[in-house]
Amino acid sequence: MPSDLDAYLRDCRQTVEAELDRVLPPANEAPALLHEAMRYSVFAGGKRIRPVFAIAAAECLGGSRQAALPAAAAVELLHTYTLIHDDLPCMDDDDFRRGRPSCHKAFGEANALLAGDALLTLALETAASSPVAPGAIVRALASAAGSRGVVGGQVADLAATGQHPDEATMRFIHEHKTADLFRAGIEMGALSASADADALTALSAFGRACGLAFQMVDDLLDADNPDDHSFSCVHIMGVERARALATTLTADAMDALRPFGDAADTLRALARRLLERTS
Amino acid sequence: MPSDLDAYLRDCRQTVEAELDRVLPPANEAPALLHEAMRYSVFAGGKRIRPVFAIAAAECLGGSRQAALPAAAAVELLHTYTLIHDDLPCMDDDDFRRGRPSCHKAFGEANALLAGDALLTLALETAASSPVAPGAIVRALASAAGSRGVVGGQVADLAATGQHPDEATMRFIHEHKTADLFRAGIEMGALSASADADALTALSAFGRACGLAFQMVDDLLDADNPDDHSFSCVHIMGVERARALATTLTADAMDALRPFGDAADTLRALARRLLERTS
Repeated sequence: MPSDLDAYLRDCRQTVEAELDRVLPPANEAPALLHEAMRYSVFAGGKRIRPVFAIAAAECLGGSRQAALPAAAAVELLHTYTLIHDDLPCMDDDDFRRGRPSCHKAFGEANALLAGDALLTLALETAASSPVAPGAIVRALASAAGSRGVVGGQVADLAATGQHPDEATMRFIHEHKTADLFRAGIEMGALSASADADALTALSAFGRACGLAFQMVDDLLDADNPDDHSFSCVHIMGVERARALATTLTADAMDALRPFGDAADTLRALARRLLERTS
Repeated sequence: MPSDLDAYLRDCRQTVEAELDRVLPPANEAPALLHEAMRYSVFAGGKRIRPVFAIAAAECLGGSRQAALPAAAAVELLHTYTLIHDDLPCMDDDDFRRGRPSCHKAFGEANALLAGDALLTLALETAASSPVAPGAIVRALASAAGSRGVVGGQVADLAATGQHPDEATMRFIHEHKTADLFRAGIEMGALSASADADALTALSAFGRACGLAFQMVDDLLDADNPDDHSFSCVHIMGVERARALATTLTADAMDALRPFGDAADTLRALARRLLERTS
């Protein structure tokens, strides 16, 4: 339903915000500083892209939004923890995130470290509260988030910073640092709708291609920013080849949705919006 | 089987070491530095107290050791992550752990942070691989480890360092920083043996009392160390009252085992060994 996409996004986001508010301890519960720090970073104006994809994947398979909510909230909590730890002085040392002081600037380094730890833990606890397939949903999230997923990608990214990595290294980083969590959110949504093995494989391929294309588009949009010293595919393969690869990946993502017919129209519209954005 | 306790401990530990080795990625798998750091900290000579209690709790209920192994390995992986993050410069800033350089001294701060993140993630993934009650086991571990458990205790501990906290603060810290994970390991073992609600409640009370007593004994043993500037119950309540409380907690732990009769003899022997130690 491309024409109603904005309404769909608004509606999903509102439901996700409410679920995040429900699963997070109140800001005044002891230790208050910790719970404030967790909420500060979770409610920092994120676009909730991963949860929206998780919900749309569940709905594509006829699942209910209600049943997909733990999966949707879990992937966003996990994403938030990665941002907090990424910003720490020993990592990217970023003082700002989305125009506000980063978590460690606002709450101190130890509290930011611990708020990240607590959000990672809460992400997996929330995944385990899914009314459908909690064990499989926890395993999907944890395997995408751990040393063979996001954390592995972070380590490779840190090692590559300031170096001249080759394309294989770039692919490893994009695959793990970005695509794994994108893919996991969609798999978790699908699992909450009792996906069979074929549907899971197809949606997993869709999620991977979307995640990789998302990162390419990000790098292309950042390419004009002279302050950006982070690792980018544009530095390695040039603008033209990067653009061509993003187009190929987007086509791969759309191909993966073919088995679902019209039921995947929302996923198609979301992917198009994500990959054709200009900011 | 108190007389065979040493053989029991040796046997359990050997099985736990093998399970930890099985669930951890090989040290030469990319990114190798990350996997080396994870293994460095997991195989650092820990006594595997929490896994042994998890296994003994399962066996007390007639469960198999095999079925308890994911729970046992998970609680040890989680414990290891807390040690790595605790040692970081922004936390306790400890250069040594068990006589060797701490993880960040050996692998750098960013890699230690990420190794801790990966171990926390792997702990919950391993819990989710339990052949019995994976969802309940993940929830038991995550709720004990998160902001209402271990992480909450850490934040309170940091806030109390260098202050003169009252007894209520001390209890909050001991309850969450130490007892919650002790209790969770025992609950997870019990859940792997399909514990009913009554057995779970009794073993949970046993685990909590053991964990609190364990921390009191630790503080009492550390009391003579002039270099120890960490938060200790001895500073707050004095040696005599601390000793009396440890004795009361040990009695509470033994009381909680009453419903199980002889089946709990191993748990009794383990608790006695833990609480009567002199080093």
